[in-house]
Amino acid sequence: MLREAVYHVAHGNYAYPVSKDTLRITLRTARADVQEVTVLYQDRYGGSEPFLARMEVAAEDELFSFYQVDLQLDTKRFGYVFLLDDGKDQVFYTEKGFFAEVPPNTQFHYPYIALRDLWEPPQWAQGAVIYQIFPERFDNGDPSNDPANVEPWDMLPSVASQKGGDLQGVINNFDHFVELGVDVIYFTPVFLAPSNHKYDTVDYYTIDPHFGDEDLVRDLIKCAHDHGIKVVFDAVFNHSGFGFFAFQDVLEHGEASPFSHWFNIESFPVQIDPPNYETFSNQIYTMPKLMTHHDDVKDYFLEVGRYWVREFGIDGWRLDVANEIDHQFWREFRQAVKAENPEALIVGELWHEASEWVRGDQFDSVMNYSLQYACLDFFAKGSIRARSFANRLAKVQVNHTHAVNLSLFNLLDSHDTERFLTTCGGNVHKFALAVAFQLTYEGAPMIYYGDEVGMEGLTDPDCRRGMVWDPAEQNLDILAWYQKLIALRREHPALRHGRCRTVWADSATNIYGFVRFGQGEQVLVLLNNQAKAQSVDLTKVSWPVATPKQVQDLLTGEKLPLGEIVLEAYGTRILV
Amino acid sequence: MLREAVYHVAHGNYAYPVSKDTLRITLRTARADVQEVTVLYQDRYGGSEPFLARMEVAAEDELFSFYQVDLQLDTKRFGYVFLLDDGKDQVFYTEKGFFAEVPPNTQFHYPYIALRDLWEPPQWAQGAVIYQIFPERFDNGDPSNDPANVEPWDMLPSVASQKGGDLQGVINNFDHFVELGVDVIYFTPVFLAPSNHKYDTVDYYTIDPHFGDEDLVRDLIKCAHDHGIKVVFDAVFNHSGFGFFAFQDVLEHGEASPFSHWFNIESFPVQIDPPNYETFSNQIYTMPKLMTHHDDVKDYFLEVGRYWVREFGIDGWRLDVANEIDHQFWREFRQAVKAENPEALIVGELWHEASEWVRGDQFDSVMNYSLQYACLDFFAKGSIRARSFANRLAKVQVNHTHAVNLSLFNLLDSHDTERFLTTCGGNVHKFALAVAFQLTYEGAPMIYYGDEVGMEGLTDPDCRRGMVWDPAEQNLDILAWYQKLIALRREHPALRHGRCRTVWADSATNIYGFVRFGQGEQVLVLLNNQAKAQSVDLTKVSWPVATPKQVQDLLTGEKLPLGEIVLEAYGTRILV
Repeated sequence: MLREAVYHVAHGNYAYPVSKDTLRITLRTARADVQEVTVLYQDRYGGSEPFLARMEVAAEDELFSFYQVDLQLDTKRFGYVFLLDDGKDQVFYTEKGFFAEVPPNTQFHYPYIALRDLWEPPQWAQGAVIYQIFPERFDNGDPSNDPANVEPWDMLPSVASQKGGDLQGVINNFDHFVELGVDVIYFTPVFLAPSNHKYDTVDYYTIDPHFGDEDLVRDLIKCAHDHGIKVVFDAVFNHSGFGFFAFQDVLEHGEASPFSHWFNIESFPVQIDPPNYETFSNQIYTMPKLMTHHDDVKDYFLEVGRYWVREFGIDGWRLDVANEIDHQFWREFRQAVKAENPEALIVGELWHEASEWVRGDQFDSVMNYSLQYACLDFFAKGSIRARSFANRLAKVQVNHTHAVNLSLFNLLDSHDTERFLTTCGGNVHKFALAVAFQLTYEGAPMIYYGDEVGMEGLTDPDCRRGMVWDPAEQNLDILAWYQKLIALRREHPALRHGRCRTVWADSATNIYGFVRFGQGEQVLVLLNNQAKAQSVDLTKVSWPVATPKQVQDLLTGEKLPLGEIVLEAYGTRILV
Repeated sequence: MLREAVYHVAHGNYAYPVSKDTLRITLRTARADVQEVTVLYQDRYGGSEPFLARMEVAAEDELFSFYQVDLQLDTKRFGYVFLLDDGKDQVFYTEKGFFAEVPPNTQFHYPYIALRDLWEPPQWAQGAVIYQIFPERFDNGDPSNDPANVEPWDMLPSVASQKGGDLQGVINNFDHFVELGVDVIYFTPVFLAPSNHKYDTVDYYTIDPHFGDEDLVRDLIKCAHDHGIKVVFDAVFNHSGFGFFAFQDVLEHGEASPFSHWFNIESFPVQIDPPNYETFSNQIYTMPKLMTHHDDVKDYFLEVGRYWVREFGIDGWRLDVANEIDHQFWREFRQAVKAENPEALIVGELWHEASEWVRGDQFDSVMNYSLQYACLDFFAKGSIRARSFANRLAKVQVNHTHAVNLSLFNLLDSHDTERFLTTCGGNVHKFALAVAFQLTYEGAPMIYYGDEVGMEGLTDPDCRRGMVWDPAEQNLDILAWYQKLIALRREHPALRHGRCRTVWADSATNIYGFVRFGQGEQVLVLLNNQAKAQSVDLTKVSWPVATPKQVQDLLTGEKLPLGEIVLEAYGTRILV
């Protein structure tokens, strides 16, 4: 038994409550190293013989197997040890290490399931279909508010292009969201700012006049809510824009400005080029870094967070460059925003390992770029095969609680990346396969505007082309594919809320499959990432709940006995 | 190379800032599996070739080696990968796994050192000498406030004994604290409560009249502060006492009580025996569990936390059964208390793995029972030998930041355990060796009243005997040993603030040694846990900073060349 591989800790993703008396625990071992793992658990104050629970493999990556089980105790106070059996040795794994018998004071303790620790992201966000809009490029609903020098809508954009897209353009297109089956619209920034992307905020309390005004935002949110759609805004608290009043005051009054401590200025007078103040990224002088550790700066931005939730009823915030702001700011931000609306969603922009931010005190969710990279490599570039893809997904999955996984913004692309279809070399079959994965896998699929009609584009600025509205220019097959998959997702709660287990990952055939289960059903999704038809023997699938006698393909309606089935080239099967 | 053993994550104890531009990172490998570990690091936005830093082994346990290094970047934004070389293979370890070359987007990211994340426990608590007082048994300074039925001071106590100890008794003995060299006094509870231990609080705003009153507390704290001594009180927010006004109101008015939601009552009317309400531990009806997730309950106890800091100037709180209260309560408690005094100390009673609570948002420190268990097994019971002892210490050390380690309450015993000398079978040599370890090792040594004069006692109630004040009854050799070691600790900042590295752990001879280093010096402590004299070859010690040419024994004053030195039976050498 490879002891160095065995790991458990009684908090975080390794031990978390799933109800007021039930604890979900995970144990890691070397991959396929152990035959049987049993948990011996009891009230941590003792008083009875321990209960036993057999653990099951919930995920595997290239090095590790992850065993999982739910433990229930009325007293909510857990003491436990693991018994590992590899066929040769039986050994106890405890908080203090490995033992042949369990010495005193060595149990793992999950001390108590307190109700306030039983957190999860808002129910509405778990498994929701998110639609990302870059307002300047979605639709020009009101030419009267266009900026000067608006370019033709269809012309390929450059970095500074203005095309006149606005919020009226969004309001005009709710039919599109409804036909697609969107649950949430996430807007990149809409506050006053000179750039087309508006990540250089000048006024956090004013809607950019080229996008609309506060009344229009009220209309937009009412329209969304009337359609059962939630609205998430984008906030940039890491840095302000150059024109932000506080920075302008410092430029004008130097050290004497009451806002001089809002920024990190090396010396006065302030110099612009190169900047002698801290900025976002590498000396981007138009984006001075905000010193959010000062109480007055913090209070200013906490109130921004509260204001749009309280006064306009937005349903949540996506937070830009969230990991360069201190954790305590986000803890207080969460308290401030949730005090206005406990059901508000808080999503951090994080491109890397994010577990530190989704422990219950800061964010509900993050951008799932790890999944995006895996999809790029597997579906678009073909640089990894099915087993590696499964390994990469497993690493993300075991890193969070189930409710967080359900809420991760699962993106294929965004305003910051090349369009996924473009990375596929324009191959719609590969793209459709990736979309089938995105829309059935565990999480909240985030659709970047235009992907659903087959838009292409290299990275910024090319990925920010004007939305294609002319049906003759749209790929209607792709659109129908999105609609079909989202409809299935709505009809089958397991696809939205169910747990997820990889059950097929064959690098030889490059077929990948997983089961979503819970809510009384289990749905098997099989994806053939190969340019030829191939078959899968369904009798070899390990169904997490129980092996069905026959299955039905939700895409074709056909009923099949449990046996060999064929997947077309780049074909998808969704079996219930 | 054993890849399953390799571990790093870019937060918590594995990556934390030690100054505004310096990050301390730790990498785990299988023990002695790798020859060389190098970090390649750069600003996470790129723009330059990576810097290189060689990592050093900071700790080892039975399975793992822990490599550590400090990285400095003016921009405070770190992207990095590890290069591991085991003599056969060179391989990069990244956030996404192992690679021969580093693919894009695989670096670990510590996104930014924000000033508010650069937290540490109060400086005064780091390495401080704590003295724990159980007031009912320390000294009876004012017989006029004695409870009825006071027993003779010297009689062995039973569970319900009252002996008349009080706060005047503490005030009367400041000479003792000063002679000993105490930095902090930690009092078990002093609020109104019927028991002798007072963990069954009746009124959180009233000093128990058998201990004194609020004026006397002011005198006590003034006296302590005049002597440069800090005062920490004990708070029980997990449960109240039976007589607490809110519980009494519920007993009286049942469901109609405005306090009925302060407790978890299964059904009305309330029943006492067995209780039909949630309690501390197994149905202890005198200690009803408090529902601190309700805002009004939370606010009540947050104000208790603020009140004694604000109105009386206590320097901190030790929190009873801290791990059975929700994390958010403690986050808000920290904010509330630190708003009154940013230098207040917050210490949780935790007997198990505690990293979740000392991340900067909740506690500054916890009771270090893991170290106590290791000391019991190594020094008192002799059930483990030097290498196992080192392994157990390493597990604690690598689990926290350095500043937290310096603040851990390193106890040999407490009011909840057998006296350490008793577990030593009364062997003062073994005890003295353990005390030498406690008072020189990394952390805040906590002395349980009376240990310093050789008091003995089995577990509760026997460990709570009346303090021995008659010099004829005290072990003055032990007292002198404490004084000498604490004096050395004060003279040599490395013993208080320095980093700590195990440099000798020989199970054959059972000699254990460590070096405290920093503040311009390094001090080697060697402990011979054997009943015979043995020697150590000082030329074989790996000094963390630089190898000295000669050393001086701080206990004897003798200067020694770097060579073979003798340690007496159970002997201690402290070499600088």
